[in-house]
Amino acid sequence: MKIAVDAMGGDHAPGEIVKGACQAAEAFPQLELILVGREREIKPFLPNGSQPGNVVIRQAEETVAMGEHPAQAVRSKKDSSIVVATRMVREKEADALVSAGSTGAQMAASLLGLGRIKGVERPAIATVMPTLEGGKLVLDVGANPDAKAEHLLQYARMGSIYAERILGLREPRVGLLNIGGEEGKGNDLTQHAYPLLKASGLNFIGNIEGRDVPYGRADVVVCDGFVGNVLLKTAEGLAGAFFEQIKEKITSSPVRKLGALMVKPGLKEIARSLDYAEYGGAPLLGVNGISIICHGSSKAKAIRNAVRVAKECVQSRFVEEISRALRPADR
Amino acid sequence: MKIAVDAMGGDHAPGEIVKGACQAAEAFPQLELILVGREREIKPFLPNGSQPGNVVIRQAEETVAMGEHPAQAVRSKKDSSIVVATRMVREKEADALVSAGSTGAQMAASLLGLGRIKGVERPAIATVMPTLEGGKLVLDVGANPDAKAEHLLQYARMGSIYAERILGLREPRVGLLNIGGEEGKGNDLTQHAYPLLKASGLNFIGNIEGRDVPYGRADVVVCDGFVGNVLLKTAEGLAGAFFEQIKEKITSSPVRKLGALMVKPGLKEIARSLDYAEYGGAPLLGVNGISIICHGSSKAKAIRNAVRVAKECVQSRFVEEISRALRPADR
Repeated sequence: MKIAVDAMGGDHAPGEIVKGACQAAEAFPQLELILVGREREIKPFLPNGSQPGNVVIRQAEETVAMGEHPAQAVRSKKDSSIVVATRMVREKEADALVSAGSTGAQMAASLLGLGRIKGVERPAIATVMPTLEGGKLVLDVGANPDAKAEHLLQYARMGSIYAERILGLREPRVGLLNIGGEEGKGNDLTQHAYPLLKASGLNFIGNIEGRDVPYGRADVVVCDGFVGNVLLKTAEGLAGAFFEQIKEKITSSPVRKLGALMVKPGLKEIARSLDYAEYGGAPLLGVNGISIICHGSSKAKAIRNAVRVAKECVQSRFVEEISRALRPADR
Repeated sequence: MKIAVDAMGGDHAPGEIVKGACQAAEAFPQLELILVGREREIKPFLPNGSQPGNVVIRQAEETVAMGEHPAQAVRSKKDSSIVVATRMVREKEADALVSAGSTGAQMAASLLGLGRIKGVERPAIATVMPTLEGGKLVLDVGANPDAKAEHLLQYARMGSIYAERILGLREPRVGLLNIGGEEGKGNDLTQHAYPLLKASGLNFIGNIEGRDVPYGRADVVVCDGFVGNVLLKTAEGLAGAFFEQIKEKITSSPVRKLGALMVKPGLKEIARSLDYAEYGGAPLLGVNGISIICHGSSKAKAIRNAVRVAKECVQSRFVEEISRALRPADR
């Protein structure tokens, strides 16, 4: 199995990306890792001497920066690492791609290069959110800021397949992110989506509210891309703000400093449980190929786990699963 | 100045409500507190003997439960505590009302009983969110789940007045809650709202993302009622889940238990900084009178602070301020 890794994408590219890819190559010797990007910038980060035999470099001269207009950049930069990596998947030179670069560019490249699965109206960016009950899937977190009720239904179908196949959650509980518990609550979108989900045959548990998400009350949280993005980034910001405050407050006196040392392992466990890097990344659901989106600030560990996710996606053949579940006849 | 308090509304009514109102009566002897509800249920909670002289009871036989359909309940239950308290404000028997009961019912009662300020298209529920930089205003958090760009502009105007007059924030920085920093990002609503806010003459700092909110990067966060409600409840849920985890992880061994004792004061400080009760409540902005909405789980302290907020709202005459700022000629 071949996994293409966008070596130039992300806040810590290419160093951490290359490092993570090499770790994955060692962890999964049956894989072939293809580092896509500028060879001269990638080479220095390869473990000299001990470079894994299952890591190769695919030269791509250009890069797409975070600021650039995604669609324009992807159209004009045919030799950028994200475009080349995506093309390799389309042309079956790779089974999946992993990138921590501009999410917009990765989405544009996937839509242009791989296209949508037949029957899928809108792809969705799924993300695995840490909760008290482990990682749960939230989608869409930004692919489609103005969604229709039918899109949310498709997100629920795609998300359920992912949660079952990759997160290993049996009969995943699908929750509609809403502002009240009862049916009929919410905005125009959720009021229309509710009956569709109710009739979907999925394990729909009804509306869930923002406060339910961190407690893991749903395995698959469905919402439009605007709301999901706000939810995700708010959670990130709050976790960061919490830890800042804790660091400050539990070290503000000698006694507290001593206590801090004693509880540190516990706090570390919490930090680990909140670490998105554990989940690596999540695919752009609905495109005709496996394109794993990683957090822009991904380091080696996140990339290594993202490669694992890509591998599991290929093995579980969930692109075929989704096309079966969403084939037009179904709708 | 007379403040009507819905003694029957809230998870801890009437006990905590009565207690909080009496505390406020003592703290602000110049106020007259009017407890609205069933006298026989209120009386037992009055400090026997030492009942403050500036606390009176206004009999209201009915109550509106959380589950009930707000508008229907308000129309049919003319003698419910929330309807009576609102009527007292309309008929100038009280200068403001405070309730921790059903937000929907309070909103319906305010709209029917007080009406909208001339020029206000949609009232907004504002809430003060604790951040690393102190309490910041977020609105709308649920009054109007399907907002138009013009509504967001009005929220920004009303919120700025509140932030300046009640939160004491000079030239409050208004942020548009969005899913990207640059102008042009977002969904249809935010794309249309951005230019309106830019041209508003307010201290508009542009788009802010979910992760900026906990850091207090804006003093007034403007969003539609659906997104605001998700943001607020997610923050509540995360804070709760976080403290649960901390409690568990820092007491899971004897050493950690000891350390926990030493850092406890620090954690308490954080909990206090996150305590909505400190802010008491926030008004329904845009209605023609002062109606302070409290968290359903409010206890005495939150009610006491809500009465203070009500008092400050009356003193700052911000209803007049808003009607000046939003008078049709302005638009």
